[in-house]
Amino acid sequence: MSEKLSKTALTPATHTTPPAKFSHGVRKGNVLQVAGQVGFGPAVEGQAPTPVGPTLREQTLQTLANVEAILTEGGATWEDAVMIRVYLTDTAHFAEFNEIYNEYFASLAQAPAARTTVYVGLPAGLLVEIDALAVLG
Amino acid sequence: MSEKLSKTALTPATHTTPPAKFSHGVRKGNVLQVAGQVGFGPAVEGQAPTPVGPTLREQTLQTLANVEAILTEGGATWEDAVMIRVYLTDTAHFAEFNEIYNEYFASLAQAPAARTTVYVGLPAGLLVEIDALAVLG
Amino acid sequence: MSEKLSKTALTPATHTTPPAKFSHGVRKGNVLQVAGQVGFGPAVEGQAPTPVGPTLREQTLQTLANVEAILTEGGATWEDAVMIRVYLTDTAHFAEFNEIYNEYFASLAQAPAARTTVYVGLPAGLLVEIDALAVLG
Repeated sequence: MSEKLSKTALTPATHTTPPAKFSHGVRKGNVLQVAGQVGFGPAVEGQAPTPVGPTLREQTLQTLANVEAILTEGGATWEDAVMIRVYLTDTAHFAEFNEIYNEYFASLAQAPAARTTVYVGLPAGLLVEIDALAVLG
Repeated sequence: MSEKLSKTALTPATHTTPPAKFSHGVRKGNVLQVAGQVGFGPAVEGQAPTPVGPTLREQTLQTLANVEAILTEGGATWEDAVMIRVYLTDTAHFAEFNEIYNEYFASLAQAPAARTTVYVGLPAGLLVEIDALAVLG
Repeated sequence: MSEKLSKTALTPATHTTPPAKFSHGVRKGNVLQVAGQVGFGPAVEGQAPTPVGPTLREQTLQTLANVEAILTEGGATWEDAVMIRVYLTDTAHFAEFNEIYNEYFASLAQAPAARTTVYVGLPAGLLVEIDALAVLG
């Protein structure tokens, strides 16, 4: 590679400051990596980040919106996503999660991203976490 | 990049339709991402996907075969894999899983892929899930 | 791509042999993938790998050093990392983990990597596992 690739942090205005030295998203060359997003509502100055609601639907839609904001900030769309990692806390949520996921991606024109869904622990109050890898170009 | 990269869904004939709007695998440029695979046997029309057997060995071999089918569909082989993510449900399975893994990859010519193994929850009946990232070229 | 990309295993001298047919890290083209690292101290011939200490701080610092050794072996630095995946075993460790993480990355000049942190099971005695994806160039 003859040109030095630059690395850019992606920090949408809607997002709260990350709780540690990491970026909500990073773009380097044609690779865009979105950090794990949860259902936090838009940042309010002086307030700690809070999930939007107790339901899986509310949290999932907000989480997807948060991922999308980072893709957008980096010049990408969901069409560029090659992998979406989904972390749920309860296997009983799988069917409902898929319904919400399908509605959200109903208008996708290109091949949908690959996906892995596993069931893990998350901080109290959070039902879902999602990250994504996109390849632009 | 002067050329627009195309994004292709990888759907081997042996695979059941994904339970939501995601692809079993995606290739874009020289990146191939395989979605989380489990030990489902070859798709049978009109039947729900079912794991091949109750043992870790049966499920692991089928899961690896399912990942391989997607790599093949995308023009890649295990030699191209740079990362394999392994999700087990029980730390007591680690040693046996590694034995099966080593047998499976005994004839690998190039450097084996990096790997991360963690222990998570999976839907009832499933003991292992595996995804993979490959870089072709 | 006109040139065949080569794939290289990254095996720092400090590292114990992987317990199965995988590489501690792999570089192919400008992609460097670090396998899941834990807090094992430097390899001692004839001894099984052992975590450095019982505390989260000791294990985290050793784990990060182990990731860094692989990045270095592949010609990369933390500045090239685009994604760091953190696996903790206890949500109560999040705040302390972030403190250690921030100290460790205090002198980072470029945008920090994206990060996902989830809570999983790990083999007995291990509190943290970390892997990383870097894009060089």
